Amino acid sequence: MVFNLALRRKTLHRIKMFERSYIPIKEGLSKILTHIKPLDKTEVIKIEDAYDRVICEDIYSPEDLPGFDRSTVDGFAVRAEDTYGASETSPQYLKVCGEVFMGMPTNLEISKGQCIKIPTGGMLPTGANAVLMFEDAQVVNEDTIEVLRAVTVYENVILKDEDIKKGEIVIKKGKKLRPQDIGALAGLGITEVKVCAKPIVSIISTGDEIVSPSTKKVLGQVRDINSFTLDGLIRQSGGITKKLGIIKDDYTTLKGVFQSAIKDSDVVLISGGTSAGIKDMTSSIIQEAGNPGILFHGVSVKPGKPLIGAIVNGKPVFGLPGHPAAIFVSFDTFIRPVIEKLISYDNTLLRYKKVRAIMPKNIHSISGRTDFIRVKLTEQDGKLVATPILGKSGLINTLVKADGIVIIEDDALGINAHQEVEVRLFD
Amino acid sequence: MVFNLALRRKTLHRIKMFERSYIPIKEGLSKILTHIKPLDKTEVIKIEDAYDRVICEDIYSPEDLPGFDRSTVDGFAVRAEDTYGASETSPQYLKVCGEVFMGMPTNLEISKGQCIKIPTGGMLPTGANAVLMFEDAQVVNEDTIEVLRAVTVYENVILKDEDIKKGEIVIKKGKKLRPQDIGALAGLGITEVKVCAKPIVSIISTGDEIVSPSTKKVLGQVRDINSFTLDGLIRQSGGITKKLGIIKDDYTTLKGVFQSAIKDSDVVLISGGTSAGIKDMTSSIIQEAGNPGILFHGVSVKPGKPLIGAIVNGKPVFGLPGHPAAIFVSFDTFIRPVIEKLISYDNTLLRYKKVRAIMPKNIHSISGRTDFIRVKLTEQDGKLVATPILGKSGLINTLVKADGIVIIEDDALGINAHQEVEVRLFD
Repeated sequence: MVFNLALRRKTLHRIKMFERSYIPIKEGLSKILTHIKPLDKTEVIKIEDAYDRVICEDIYSPEDLPGFDRSTVDGFAVRAEDTYGASETSPQYLKVCGEVFMGMPTNLEISKGQCIKIPTGGMLPTGANAVLMFEDAQVVNEDTIEVLRAVTVYENVILKDEDIKKGEIVIKKGKKLRPQDIGALAGLGITEVKVCAKPIVSIISTGDEIVSPSTKKVLGQVRDINSFTLDGLIRQSGGITKKLGIIKDDYTTLKGVFQSAIKDSDVVLISGGTSAGIKDMTSSIIQEAGNPGILFHGVSVKPGKPLIGAIVNGKPVFGLPGHPAAIFVSFDTFIRPVIEKLISYDNTLLRYKKVRAIMPKNIHSISGRTDFIRVKLTEQDGKLVATPILGKSGLINTLVKADGIVIIEDDALGINAHQEVEVRLFD
Repeated sequence: MVFNLALRRKTLHRIKMFERSYIPIKEGLSKILTHIKPLDKTEVIKIEDAYDRVICEDIYSPEDLPGFDRSTVDGFAVRAEDTYGASETSPQYLKVCGEVFMGMPTNLEISKGQCIKIPTGGMLPTGANAVLMFEDAQVVNEDTIEVLRAVTVYENVILKDEDIKKGEIVIKKGKKLRPQDIGALAGLGITEVKVCAKPIVSIISTGDEIVSPSTKKVLGQVRDINSFTLDGLIRQSGGITKKLGIIKDDYTTLKGVFQSAIKDSDVVLISGGTSAGIKDMTSSIIQEAGNPGILFHGVSVKPGKPLIGAIVNGKPVFGLPGHPAAIFVSFDTFIRPVIEKLISYDNTLLRYKKVRAIMPKNIHSISGRTDFIRVKLTEQDGKLVATPILGKSGLINTLVKADGIVIIEDDALGINAHQEVEVRLFD
């Protein structure tokens, strides 16, 4: 009985330890984000270089687009009221009194009973308020057409301010510019825009066992995987990667590299260092470098638990776990949102590619922990199936084989076989 | 009676015209794709530059990864059988006979009753087949530990070929390289890869009304929107844009520019030219330039109907409608798949970002026509709502305001209000 109590106490102590040391994702992220302000560095660049950049000014239209009433079809500019009642069985007759040419202003004017030939995109002449398509007209002779169908006011016409009105807000600050946004800027004659400068994200790789991919390795060493994965993820999120090399597990060296990284970058990532010694070293170097220092050490997520989150002199710092899959999850849940806040990009609603798929087997999880299950997608009988790729978080191949992840939120206990799940696709 | 018959005949004739001239998307695309072979131009580039490129070789692993049995925790390398039956209430005792250091091979060996201290990532010594975590051990003195929990064979160990086996296929030809794929290549010591060269996609802008965005325009002129939108879309799809400028509607000039474009590019796009005259000119220039020439003229899609699809001397050529939204749909349905075939990228299953949303209103469509409805997404009561942005296909602003599109397939007659729909997000 005494023995059992001791055991229970030990177990309770362990559960408490877990609860105390591992922070939920949302709480950890919010602790970091409250310290971060968008960068105030901006660049003015040509619109043709601005694709995928985040704009940091509101764009108001300097003019009406298209700027003049424009035909959307090849046909005849008419007064709609002159066509009312017209049909194939009872056509109306109009006098053709000229032609509009592409790309040129027209001084022509029509009045009752008249029309003017007009091409698609041509400028509507004064007096006209609609365009009758060629297909709905019958040419009687050079001067006269039969109207076979009535048109309504503004039919087949784009009004001078119908696309964009002068003074209207066209693109809002914080938007990542897409091909059509660049197109709209071009259409308005705006050839340069102010975008947020890309944050510099430094990667310090640590670990005495890590060697560069181009180095011949000896037994007991492994090549650097994580700084290459991180580089792609950083660029994908809108940052600039600065690799500071593989630093040996030496306090003074690591401290020096870290302190100059804090000065020269907007975000610092310390990757690797999975052994207890280097973990402690990393923690104390971060903690000593500036305030407020480490905000959490350990996140209630699988994989990715041993993450360190810190703010040093206003700069976000992350001590990343050494395992490739863990790196990926840490990036997704913490570093990407940080980069997006730095570049003032906030579009969580639409950030991820998602598909729905069937989970073919039961997956268990633990309440209070968020699980990131890597899955491979296949199509079976016209339905997507998300097969979990099991494997330890140290395996890069589980990520290479995966098409996306299924997230089991911290309040869920797992997924039942044949349940429909949402798969977040990798970019 | 006679009159009615004539009318019916006229109507029937029109329906036939429609059926004859407008090809369904799938049929049109397949006509083009059967003529296209993947480009045989390749480039060998560094892996750090290969992010988002399509690899054109199968990568087999030159070695096992990690290459040695590795601990995934900080603890003691043990023989699992020596721990069987151990528990907190009845621990086993093991003799500590050394330590493994990070990044170094170890010559240590253990036999029955022995263990060796090992860091995360350390090399498992001969004789050991599992690692006991520090948390599951109690240090009695320098030489002895208590085992508080039994471990199974290979527990807390990654086997030498558990991540990737020598000779295993790691990355297949045709894959677009993601951050984790680059990471895996780095891990295997592969520092360069062969990727498919980017196809050169030339854009010829036509239309006497079109001026460059930097030009001061006069009434009746509009600025070039489409070549800017197309440029972004081309780069997004993996091509290189070559803008050949705005060519005036002159037969000889356009023909000359087109013929040299066919020689120098992998795909040629002729944008604009919406008026009947320039449309005819474009058609005959394409038709005369080489075989088989025009494969279809007009697609049963809204917007984007007036698309011309052609193959000239093996090169795909598209005559694009002039309206911005139409350009977008034509690109999505025809040009993107063509570029993807040229770079040997085939991943239709996962190409699009999709979300499900509620359609707030009825949308009508016509059987036999595919409709692309631009929608804006908002969140209401925790559900996504896809509100259609109505407007003519000539309006760039409908695309700027939209977050994605809802596709009404050609066999559907529309969408009912409050129905759940799939929204394809813009990239």
